[in-house]
Amino acid sequence: MKIRPLFDRVVVEEEKEDTTKSGIFLGAVSNADSIHVGKVLYVGPGNQNDDGEMTKMFVNVGDKVLFNKFSCAEACIDKKHLLIMRQTDILAVIE
Amino acid sequence: MKIRPLFDRVVVEEEKEDTTKSGIFLGAVSNADSIHVGKVLYVGPGNQNDDGEMTKMFVNVGDKVLFNKFSCAEACIDKKHLLIMRQTDILAVIE
Amino acid sequence: MKIRPLFDRVVVEEEKEDTTKSGIFLGAVSNADSIHVGKVLYVGPGNQNDDGEMTKMFVNVGDKVLFNKFSCAEACIDKKHLLIMRQTDILAVIE
Amino acid sequence: MKIRPLFDRVVVEEEKEDTTKSGIFLGAVSNADSIHVGKVLYVGPGNQNDDGEMTKMFVNVGDKVLFNKFSCAEACIDKKHLLIMRQTDILAVIE
Amino acid sequence: MKIRPLFDRVVVEEEKEDTTKSGIFLGAVSNADSIHVGKVLYVGPGNQNDDGEMTKMFVNVGDKVLFNKFSCAEACIDKKHLLIMRQTDILAVIE
Amino acid sequence: MKIRPLFDRVVVEEEKEDTTKSGIFLGAVSNADSIHVGKVLYVGPGNQNDDGEMTKMFVNVGDKVLFNKFSCAEACIDKKHLLIMRQTDILAVIE
Amino acid sequence: MKIRPLFDRVVVEEEKEDTTKSGIFLGAVSNADSIHVGKVLYVGPGNQNDDGEMTKMFVNVGDKVLFNKFSCAEACIDKKHLLIMRQTDILAVIE
Repeated sequence: MKIRPLFDRVVVEEEKEDTTKSGIFLGAVSNADSIHVGKVLYVGPGNQNDDGEMTKMFVNVGDKVLFNKFSCAEACIDKKHLLIMRQTDILAVIE
Repeated sequence: MKIRPLFDRVVVEEEKEDTTKSGIFLGAVSNADSIHVGKVLYVGPGNQNDDGEMTKMFVNVGDKVLFNKFSCAEACIDKKHLLIMRQTDILAVIE
Repeated sequence: MKIRPLFDRVVVEEEKEDTTKSGIFLGAVSNADSIHVGKVLYVGPGNQNDDGEMTKMFVNVGDKVLFNKFSCAEACIDKKHLLIMRQTDILAVIE
Repeated sequence: MKIRPLFDRVVVEEEKEDTTKSGIFLGAVSNADSIHVGKVLYVGPGNQNDDGEMTKMFVNVGDKVLFNKFSCAEACIDKKHLLIMRQTDILAVIE
Repeated sequence: MKIRPLFDRVVVEEEKEDTTKSGIFLGAVSNADSIHVGKVLYVGPGNQNDDGEMTKMFVNVGDKVLFNKFSCAEACIDKKHLLIMRQTDILAVIE
Repeated sequence: MKIRPLFDRVVVEEEKEDTTKSGIFLGAVSNADSIHVGKVLYVGPGNQNDDGEMTKMFVNVGDKVLFNKFSCAEACIDKKHLLIMRQTDILAVIE
Repeated sequence: MKIRPLFDRVVVEEEKEDTTKSGIFLGAVSNADSIHVGKVLYVGPGNQNDDGEMTKMFVNVGDKVLFNKFSCAEACIDKKHLLIMRQTDILAVIE
């Protein structure tokens, strides 16, 4: 099974309290809009602008990304906890 | 009876807890904006842009799609549970 | 008496639980934004764009349409239960 | 005294339960956004677009119009119950 | 002391229940968004559009204007009850 | 220490009930959106438009300005009570 | 580990009540939208406009900036208290 995101959407698998794999520790901040970390699994083709061209995507499959969940849709698909968000809702890439 | 959606709208029949047919298991996530799965029954012609051209549709009849219900209209028509949504509210296509 | 809608507005007469006339059964869905069915009585000329041209109307008098009431104005005029909505709020045409 | 509305605003005198004069009966619909009827007293010059031209007005003094009060300002001026609304908030003209 | 409003703002001195001076009677309407009357004291230069030109102002110092207070800022300056509003929030000029 | 505001922001030092210095008396108006007076300390370079040009600033350092606090950020910096606001939120200049 | 912000985002490390390092004292103002101070750690490439060009960034790594937290995402990453915000949400640079 493969997921093809529409427009500039990105499918991300959240990594919960996984310090080892990504080397990042996301400590608790008492804030409703706190940051989460995940890995990009699928990347959409971009949005079509008024001239019919597709806008550029700035993240790639495999990228480790920071995001908040405010505008994410989430589901458990094939036993993975996946989030679907727009590229513009990704805050940063961890390199 | 045939339904002709206006603009970029898409008519989707929801598949509820149907692991077998689509091979997808959508497990419970304690989230109001969780993801649903369905099959595309009808596709609109697209929106007309300022130059009078129709924008492109990226889903086809028969596609298995992921969506959330936030901006859907829903009804039971001819004993089918149908949802009408804009193409931009479809998150991804399952291939 | 004749009603001339302004801009892209459409006057629709709602059909309530009328399975016979339209051949559509709209069963109950426990949802605030459920779909209704009606017949188009009057169609506006479209919106004027920045170049002074009128945008195209995609529904015609007599069309059977699906809509939700979220952005409708409604009244009882000459003993008919009428709704006035923008074309963009019509979900689909039943053919 | 004369009222000169600014931009695309229109001054309307509401007709309350006056079946005889306008020949329209607006029956009660249990809806917060129900439709009202009135007569146009003054019409503004239109909005100025980015090229400095005035947009067209589609209603005339004397027109019988349908509107809802959602975005109206209202006052009793010289013993008349007047409403000031934008042209785009007028739903339809009765002919 | 002189007040120079920025952009398309207008400084208005409210006239409260002053039937004699302006010849207008604003009777009570049980409505939160009711209309007020006042005299224009200062007029801004207009907004600068994308081409660097100033948009036109349609009211003049001394004009008797109708407005509602929804988007007004108000203060008592030099013992006058003044309101500062954008031109687009002025409903009409009384002539 | 110097503050360089970004975009069209302006740093203002509020003058509280200081009739003597500015010659303005701002009396109490029972209104949540009442007007305040202050002196401009720093002015940003303007916003960059789509052609890469900076939009014009209409206030200068030293200007006495009227503003409301609705969209201000405020802080006590170096014992001064400062507010940072966008130019478009300044209502008027006192001359 | 390096953080690459997307679009016009900026990663800032907050300085809490640190008068000595930055020479700024941010005293308490009883205001929900009060100003905070921090140091810029990473700067994104800018937003891509409709012509495919990147908009200009006006802050640099190492800048001491004033901001409010209204539209920030925050997290504790590698034991640092970091905030990710859009450039347009930075109020000013301290020089």
